[in-house]
Amino acid sequence: MTNLKNDLILRVLKGEKTERVPVWMMRQAGRFLPEYRVLREKYGFFERCQTPELATEITLQPIDRLGVDAAILFSDILVVPQAMGMEVQLVESKGPLLPAPIQSAADLSRVSVPDVHDRLHYVFDAIRLIKKELNGRVPLIGFAGSPWTLLCYMVQGKGSKTFDEAKAFCYQQPETAHRLLQMITDTTIAYLRAQIEAGADLLQVFDSWGGLLNEQDFEQLSLQYMRQIVTALGDRVPVILFAKGAWFALAEMKATGAAGLGIDWCVSAQKARSFAGDDIVLQGNFDPAWLLAPTPVIKAKTKEMLQAFGGHHHIANLGHGILPHVPVDHARAFVDTVKECTV
Amino acid sequence: MTNLKNDLILRVLKGEKTERVPVWMMRQAGRFLPEYRVLREKYGFFERCQTPELATEITLQPIDRLGVDAAILFSDILVVPQAMGMEVQLVESKGPLLPAPIQSAADLSRVSVPDVHDRLHYVFDAIRLIKKELNGRVPLIGFAGSPWTLLCYMVQGKGSKTFDEAKAFCYQQPETAHRLLQMITDTTIAYLRAQIEAGADLLQVFDSWGGLLNEQDFEQLSLQYMRQIVTALGDRVPVILFAKGAWFALAEMKATGAAGLGIDWCVSAQKARSFAGDDIVLQGNFDPAWLLAPTPVIKAKTKEMLQAFGGHHHIANLGHGILPHVPVDHARAFVDTVKECTV
Repeated sequence: MTNLKNDLILRVLKGEKTERVPVWMMRQAGRFLPEYRVLREKYGFFERCQTPELATEITLQPIDRLGVDAAILFSDILVVPQAMGMEVQLVESKGPLLPAPIQSAADLSRVSVPDVHDRLHYVFDAIRLIKKELNGRVPLIGFAGSPWTLLCYMVQGKGSKTFDEAKAFCYQQPETAHRLLQMITDTTIAYLRAQIEAGADLLQVFDSWGGLLNEQDFEQLSLQYMRQIVTALGDRVPVILFAKGAWFALAEMKATGAAGLGIDWCVSAQKARSFAGDDIVLQGNFDPAWLLAPTPVIKAKTKEMLQAFGGHHHIANLGHGILPHVPVDHARAFVDTVKECTV
Repeated sequence: MTNLKNDLILRVLKGEKTERVPVWMMRQAGRFLPEYRVLREKYGFFERCQTPELATEITLQPIDRLGVDAAILFSDILVVPQAMGMEVQLVESKGPLLPAPIQSAADLSRVSVPDVHDRLHYVFDAIRLIKKELNGRVPLIGFAGSPWTLLCYMVQGKGSKTFDEAKAFCYQQPETAHRLLQMITDTTIAYLRAQIEAGADLLQVFDSWGGLLNEQDFEQLSLQYMRQIVTALGDRVPVILFAKGAWFALAEMKATGAAGLGIDWCVSAQKARSFAGDDIVLQGNFDPAWLLAPTPVIKAKTKEMLQAFGGHHHIANLGHGILPHVPVDHARAFVDTVKECTV
């Protein structure tokens, strides 16, 4: 048991009323900081992920620079498909490429549920080193992509606005799709369990593409697998589910037993509360593009956000990842405003 | 006054109970039909838009092939920025490119509210020819992009997942942004008025990127300008507002006086009714990717959609444009199922 000097986010996730709202920013590690860009010039993406010293340095940069209330592991959701046997290329500014996507039942022979301790040991090594370097300053968030979001990449083979090939695969070959989703889920549960064992204090599951599905498909293709993850791990550490755009399933996501739900800026605090109730922690929901406004505007908008959530059962965050070209002082204006506010 | 043989969609938009639900598909003209692809090989995009005979042929193809209940003009929302003075390139499969985007107040001198009869006469010529060739078979839908959606392209200069440069422009230079939005609005009202005068029987405004905004920004940057359009033209012909992803503003969009509201598949019929009420026509909301499923599944899913809306105050449509690679018999399965159903 580590002695955390700042356990604000964990207390909020337990339902406690706290002295102020905790704050962190999705993609705070490995995107917008100039000291990160220096490392990006020198090392390839997977080199940064797979070298514990580099992953640790990148994870800690926003803690040192911005004083956020939680660290999040520097890694990528696509290390899971990679560990399952797929080739994944991450070319900077071009997005992910999986040159041999899954297209049929036969293709499932190319993937397996791996021994995560063998294939993803570098993640757990990084977590242990991060925890040591953090030395209890703030909690560490472990994470994974949702099974549906990972299927999107494994089938489509690259980013997409619609992921229509991934959807078509599920609609045309539902049995194969569900076999693949279960393999991803089993891998993800083992992966996240090992993250906890290595020292992760809480977990976030990123369902980046859940909001592309309608209500029924979201339950079938995404939520039933996220539910397995929460059921398996939610009694060990708090789990936050963030299904971008899936405002319509907030009540169902809460019913999984998740400790918190991430929401984007398109669902207001008021509407999110009306869907999810008052007794669940909501995380969000500042429009990342607002960080491009002048800093006095950022401060005013941040206060508006805090007031809308009422200072309770709330973790301040963006509604999606920070944009790469946000000036550091703009990000700091957001973080500082939250930390100064006692709503 | 034309004598329409099939005025189903107009009667639904008047609030009448009809013998069945009318059906058309967004992007039915100029995307997925093989006979369209033949023309695409021979003529450039703007050549197809600007030649009334070609625009007419493309507009009529889905009427002949699928028997939908309305025709929609073949054109593009970006003819408006083009008419306002901007260079617009539309390269097939690469998306739009505006090589000299608006970035400052000074750049506004490069655009103006044009005489639409001078700059966009080819659209009105096409509408007159289409009406003649339709010969009353079905009504003709005219359309335009929303001012916010056009600003997105005029400022960002190309497609984007986030349109963060367009948002940053609005947040950093709000006065300039609103001047530009008003210029686009004035042009659009004149443009749509001339479409009505040429023969358009109803109008749809496409706010493709309204769903990227939070509630307040949607009102400020998008809805207040769409409201001007509905106020100016809604008493002449029915106007349908389609703001993809903006489920959160359905009640406010209804309050503009729009005759109908388009919805995507992420908002269920039940939730859309709870937001917008029972006394407004809803248009949608089949997931376009479902048209890639086997045809028996398409038929079953189409029936489910019809039942969810209850057969009244409903125009069957996709929740977004038809995907380019949908087989014709799959599109027909959707259309035929709607036409066979009397809910």
